Amino acid sequence: MEALGYYNGKWGPLDEITVPMNDRACYFGDGVYDATIAANGVIFALDEHIDRFFNSAELLEIKISLTKGELKKTLNEMHSKVDKGSYMVYWQITRGTGLRNHVFPAGPSNLWIMIKPNPMGDLYRKIKLITVEDTRFLHCNIKTLNLIPNVIASQRALEAGCHEAVFYRGETVTECAHSNVHIVKNGRFITHQADNLILRGIARGHLLQACDRLNIPVEEREFTLSELFDADEVLVSSSGTLGLCADTIDGKNVGGKAPELLKKIQDEVLREFISATGYTPAWSRA
Amino acid sequence: MEALGYYNGKWGPLDEITVPMNDRACYFGDGVYDATIAANGVIFALDEHIDRFFNSAELLEIKISLTKGELKKTLNEMHSKVDKGSYMVYWQITRGTGLRNHVFPAGPSNLWIMIKPNPMGDLYRKIKLITVEDTRFLHCNIKTLNLIPNVIASQRALEAGCHEAVFYRGETVTECAHSNVHIVKNGRFITHQADNLILRGIARGHLLQACDRLNIPVEEREFTLSELFDADEVLVSSSGTLGLCADTIDGKNVGGKAPELLKKIQDEVLREFISATGYTPAWSRA
Repeated sequence: MEALGYYNGKWGPLDEITVPMNDRACYFGDGVYDATIAANGVIFALDEHIDRFFNSAELLEIKISLTKGELKKTLNEMHSKVDKGSYMVYWQITRGTGLRNHVFPAGPSNLWIMIKPNPMGDLYRKIKLITVEDTRFLHCNIKTLNLIPNVIASQRALEAGCHEAVFYRGETVTECAHSNVHIVKNGRFITHQADNLILRGIARGHLLQACDRLNIPVEEREFTLSELFDADEVLVSSSGTLGLCADTIDGKNVGGKAPELLKKIQDEVLREFISATGYTPAWSRA
Repeated sequence: MEALGYYNGKWGPLDEITVPMNDRACYFGDGVYDATIAANGVIFALDEHIDRFFNSAELLEIKISLTKGELKKTLNEMHSKVDKGSYMVYWQITRGTGLRNHVFPAGPSNLWIMIKPNPMGDLYRKIKLITVEDTRFLHCNIKTLNLIPNVIASQRALEAGCHEAVFYRGETVTECAHSNVHIVKNGRFITHQADNLILRGIARGHLLQACDRLNIPVEEREFTLSELFDADEVLVSSSGTLGLCADTIDGKNVGGKAPELLKKIQDEVLREFISATGYTPAWSRA
């Protein structure tokens, strides 16, 4: 099977799965999700993603009818139905089904899973970014299905021939449309603190842990657009990419001033991924 | 049929209609909607709602594959399949179907319609409100499917035994979770200007037009929480309710100081509704 869909126990080819029009995802985007990559039959960092998923659901008061263990079992079971290539494993919970009414419904929540091929790109390639004003709501710490501003920013990046859009509020850089963003300056790794303005990225966490192991000092704090453009290196991380480096933002050259430190960090997150999955990407020079 | 669902030409009982799991509504809330009431076989203020709907879609760059006239025809056709009672006619367009990917898909958008019974409550009853901080995104002028903060605020209102939640940003009152909010003070009707912080409500527009006809001066400007609590009257309007009056906010008594003016305004919007639909609600004292 190329791509698999699952909805409340029913599963099959993703493009054949249908859901009730009355699911609250359909008219309120009333749900939360999480996602990670899988390779060689192993779903990477699954426990961390499940923990974050339960936290997102709790913050929105959505009751998940499974335990963490049961969800893990279901995800692994569905993942076992596709081959051992490189996949994105995505799942979401929505607040239930019923006639459109803002207040919470009485019935149970709905579990959705989508598993689709996800060839892992070269970690060491350089990417291009644009900046976009961050006009999102103040709950960016929750991984919700309310993603229109992220969609629009991603489209703007594509139209500019870029990989990702960096959000800023006032002068402060927050995160990207579907990644976190970090800078390296004077040997230090700097990333926005994990408050309500950014998602606490799992890949971000792995970068911070890699820095710890490499004795690279970390600062979790706000940084400005000026700091972004003046950084020694600019990194963008997501569970799909681990941690890529940018060489232009809004068409201006950035970074490229601490290539050894950058390579150390990227080597370390890649080493961790290979060690966990037993999967060595073809482009890997580790 | 009690409630009707429609998706891209397929229609039937609402709770039996299903949609593809890959519709972008399902994982991004990537769509816009509009809704209005219908009674006696007439959909109220339909042209205005269709105009706003096309404007919402344009602001999000979602291409609607029908003309306004074709959409109107389809809505009237579907509405003709339910009886002549009091209904909510709701429709939405979503940005298409495909594997989850933030950037815009190549394919066409999807049209959804939901028609459900909507008994019209007494316009002259008093309602209770709570206040909730407005943490939404800065695109509240677009009627999108990204409605989690509205869901949460509505649930908070219900839990407090109230009808609606009034949002505020800093000291400024913006709108409600699914209505606009207005005040009457010293014979003037005051409502937040139609910028990106509120939805340009159709019922709000009808209230403003009613004030014009009644020679009641109107101010479209920001007003504060203090002004809300000190108002002579507080009104809440939505297409489902025309314009209700509140008598408490956060448990404190409000309004009640300009009952004649209030009744004039409510009588006028009700007169307009009855004149357009030929439907006189049982509770009507007009």
